[in-house]
Amino acid sequence: MRYHKIPDETVRRLPIYLRGLLFSWEQGQKSISSSDLADFIGAEPCQIRKDFSYFGEFGTPGVGYNIERLAKEIKRILKLDIIQKAALVGAGNLGAAVLAYTGFRIYGFDIAAAFDIDPKKVGKKIKNVVIEDVSNLWALKKRRINLAIIAVPRDAAQQTADALVRAGVKGILNFSPCYITVPGKVKVITIDIAMDFARLPYYMPLS
Amino acid sequence: MRYHKIPDETVRRLPIYLRGLLFSWEQGQKSISSSDLADFIGAEPCQIRKDFSYFGEFGTPGVGYNIERLAKEIKRILKLDIIQKAALVGAGNLGAAVLAYTGFRIYGFDIAAAFDIDPKKVGKKIKNVVIEDVSNLWALKKRRINLAIIAVPRDAAQQTADALVRAGVKGILNFSPCYITVPGKVKVITIDIAMDFARLPYYMPLS
Repeated sequence: MRYHKIPDETVRRLPIYLRGLLFSWEQGQKSISSSDLADFIGAEPCQIRKDFSYFGEFGTPGVGYNIERLAKEIKRILKLDIIQKAALVGAGNLGAAVLAYTGFRIYGFDIAAAFDIDPKKVGKKIKNVVIEDVSNLWALKKRRINLAIIAVPRDAAQQTADALVRAGVKGILNFSPCYITVPGKVKVITIDIAMDFARLPYYMPLS
Repeated sequence: MRYHKIPDETVRRLPIYLRGLLFSWEQGQKSISSSDLADFIGAEPCQIRKDFSYFGEFGTPGVGYNIERLAKEIKRILKLDIIQKAALVGAGNLGAAVLAYTGFRIYGFDIAAAFDIDPKKVGKKIKNVVIEDVSNLWALKKRRINLAIIAVPRDAAQQTADALVRAGVKGILNFSPCYITVPGKVKVITIDIAMDFARLPYYMPLS
């Protein structure tokens, strides 16, 4: 069963819940109440209950959620129950940080290919991934990679996205600080690492 | 006038709107309708109108929002109308990417100090910022820096946060893939660069 009517905002929060559940599981917990989960990840219990209500009943009154069962279900909904291969484009500082980031594995991602335009970087290995020339991008479809991460300079972001779309990529995580345009069938999520910082001062006392 | 009852979710979206407005402004636009702004940033017009309603009337029917006025007001609400100094802890790949990231300046941030524990990095310059030894963290208060970015390995994240809190830091952006604990008066926003990726497969067709 697929859940097509889950709001985008709920989908956005599902990985947050999943991570909290996986961390609690790591710490030996078997079940968790919505208020403990809320405390742990810094959310509202009512929000969690409402979000979970979109895909059925998981909690048992007085016992809480079965962590293993709930984590498994969220993974299934997010299609993270299979290994998802991804390609990285741009092996600069940010790209290298992405390759080194252990967090992707938690969600079942395998960054299986990396590309750069700089001949000095091509052929080098970062965390077991050999950097390839961007001219090899077209072969992603054959390699069954349809997710990509863009970590190139702003001026190169749109042409990189165009090349990825031509190579059959269906989902793009864009770290370049710009808006990129893709056909409707391709999903783009743009991450601006400064944007989350921009809401910190709001919460701070006036000095 | 301060707006204390703005929901966290609205605060989270304000920088998204602000960025869209600043980009439209760059392109020479003077005003924008909520539906054009929505198209541009990939949001819902009704969401935008609802969010803006928390802080008064900005739109003129048939004309839309005055971009300059609205951007200025959002900056003021987010306390981004003054230069906010910040410190970076951890000058590895991710830290270097943070220092090189031009996006912080858009929101009025000045990453004025950077720290690392590695003696080989201390004294080096990345993008005009000289890396200092972490033992200098205590002096942040005197330097009037009360925002910090944590880009250290997971195992060092909590102790880094503790040191920052002791140094008087009031807001922390945490890139380490873990939960850190701080006193209630300190606001932490944890960014998991894999988490946004984790919702991409949901939107993709089954292959």
